[in-house]
This record gives sequence, C-alpha cells and structure tokens, in this order.
Amino acid sequence: MKIPIEISARHIHLSKPHAQVLFGAGHEFKVLKELSQPGQFAYVETVKLVGPKGEIDNVRYLGPFRARTQVEISETDARKLGIDPPFRRSGDLTGSAGVKIVGPKGEVDLKEGVIIALRHIHMDPITAEKLGVKDGDRVKVDVDGVRDLVFENVIVRVRDDFKLSMHLDTDEANAAGIDEENHFGELIKA
Amino acid sequence: MKIPIEISARHIHLSKPHAQVLFGAGHEFKVLKELSQPGQFAYVETVKLVGPKGEIDNVRYLGPFRARTQVEISETDARKLGIDPPFRRSGDLTGSAGVKIVGPKGEVDLKEGVIIALRHIHMDPITAEKLGVKDGDRVKVDVDGVRDLVFENVIVRVRDDFKLSMHLDTDEANAAGIDEENHFGELIKA
Repeated sequence: MKIPIEISARHIHLSKPHAQVLFGAGHEFKVLKELSQPGQFAYVETVKLVGPKGEIDNVRYLGPFRARTQVEISETDARKLGIDPPFRRSGDLTGSAGVKIVGPKGEVDLKEGVIIALRHIHMDPITAEKLGVKDGDRVKVDVDGVRDLVFENVIVRVRDDFKLSMHLDTDEANAAGIDEENHFGELIKA
Repeated sequence: MKIPIEISARHIHLSKPHAQVLFGAGHEFKVLKELSQPGQFAYVETVKLVGPKGEIDNVRYLGPFRARTQVEISETDARKLGIDPPFRRSGDLTGSAGVKIVGPKGEVDLKEGVIIALRHIHMDPITAEKLGVKDGDRVKVDVDGVRDLVFENVIVRVRDDFKLSMHLDTDEANAAGIDEENHFGELIKA
C-alpha cells in the first residue's frame, strides 16, 4: 500500500487568547492555502520564535484555533533556539518545552507547548480497515531512493475527516532524501 | 553486531593550494582534536561558506590535506545556502555543487566539491571478514529509540587504517533521534 508523504515544516497552532495577544484583538487572518487535512489551513501570518540561543523568524501560523498553543519544530530548529523539546504526538503537551513567541502586536512567553512531532499517518476509518490497522498502532514505512530507509514507530492516527497522508518533519525528509515533489512510502505492518 | 554511530557535522577538507589562499601561505594550523579515524583531525580553524541564498559561518576544517577540496554539508545546510549538492561518496566530486569559501586571508570560488555524504560504515578488513561484508557492499543498520528507523543503502568502506564507525550527517541523526551521546546501530546484511 502506497502512502503519500508530506513534509511538515516548522509551524505554530494558536489558542484564541494567544492569537489576540500576538496579532491584536481585531485582527482578521488571511488564508494562504488549504492543507491536505480538511478544515486545516495555513495563514499568511507568521510569528518569530525566540530561545536562549537563537531565534527563528517567519514561522507559519496554521488554523483553525486550538484549545492550546502548540509549536512544532525540528531537532535542527531546537538546537538553533537552544531548547530541548520532547518527541510527542500532537496535543500531548504536558511537560513539553517553552519558547518566547513574538508577533507584530505582542509577545507570549509560552511555558509549555513546543514539541518535535512523532511521525504519523493520517487516515480515515475505512482506509484503516482496508490496511488492517487501527488508531494508535505503530507501523513501518519503507521509503525508496538513494537514501532508502524504513521509518519504524510510525503512529497511525484515524479520524473520520483525515485524508491518507504520512507526515515527516524536515529532518526526517532530508534524511530520506525527499524533497518537495511527490513521494510515497510503502506501509509495512509492524 | 553493534556499530558505533558518529554524527558528521558540516565540514571541509582542503587541498594545500586552497588552504594557502584561505589562510595565507605561512599559516600553521592548530589541531583542535583527533578524530576517530586514525590520522584524521579537526583544526581550530574554520571557514565561511557563501551561497546564492545564504551563508554558513564556522565550518570546521578537517585535516590532513587532500588532493581536492571537498565540502560535506547536510540538506538543511544546502537549502540555507541555496545550492543543490548531490548525494555522493567521499572523493566522488565530478559534477558536484560549487560554493564560495571565505577564509581570513582570501576566498576560493569552488566550482565543484560540495556533496551530501552518503551514509557509510568505516571498518578494517578483519572486521569486514568477521561481519561477512566487503568494501562497497550496501547494508542496513537498525537504530533503536523513539525515532526507531532502519537506514538502508549504508555503504561499507574497508581500509586497513579504518576504525569501526558508522557516519551519519546531522539530518540523519536528528531523524533517528540521536544526539551527541553514545549510540549504536545493529547491522543487518541486505
């Protein structure tokens, strides 16, 4: 079974209160593009992350609002900032790293919410049944090419509105020799 | 069989003429530390790489001199510089990428010599025989951890003076969740 691969560059999800602090209460966000997962989109707006060792500008803000602000970066980014975020699933933020977030209208000193995302595959229940996997399963995905490798511990995430897609961060994509173009992995049940 | 893993950060090997241009003809290089491969060392001296989109400072110079100047960077570095080096073995430089190299005493406009190193394992002939592999073989190496993965297409490099060590670049190490500390991979014959 071929799984389409998407590369998640560093990005931020914001709670409504944090969005208001960073961009001002009346700010109307402009959609840059729809993402592959339905109802998810990238905004034109970006923020700056400031850590003890460095800063990263132009970090993409993804909507819609979330209950908690979440920053997803790569290990490369973490080193540049000088912070040590854990490898986590999206939403699993307790005890994760902090960072200062700077927007055009204000700053947020985020105490926790920075993670390096564990690689995962989005899919809907029908696809999961067809593949013989269920939400929370760990599978392997083989990626061909000059930097051929097999990603293990790939988390299956099943939801009615998910579209089949494997998400890697930029370090993982680089390690597999995957660039912006269309790439597919081969699912191997663990 | 457990293989010790080392992370190769971006670095440069210089030809003697290029070293003289960059640092001056009479310059005496200072050794920062011995590397794991016998006769190889890191100098205190560094250079700056300048590409069409960006530059990277403090790129470590490794000795001794080589016949040809060779720059080894990660895909992350390549994007920052705005160049597109091929994935290659060390020494295989024909048609590779160029970059401007800036030293304290001069500049070199390198036409080719920039590569992203293919992952590989150094070993001596006795170890190779014990492992049942030979120079140029491609093997797999399984790396455990939260970002468990299997690197395929790992090139075996056999030489009398090589010490057993697998070399990954920083993107690969980050993708495998490996940091500076001691890590080992499990060799799997392909």
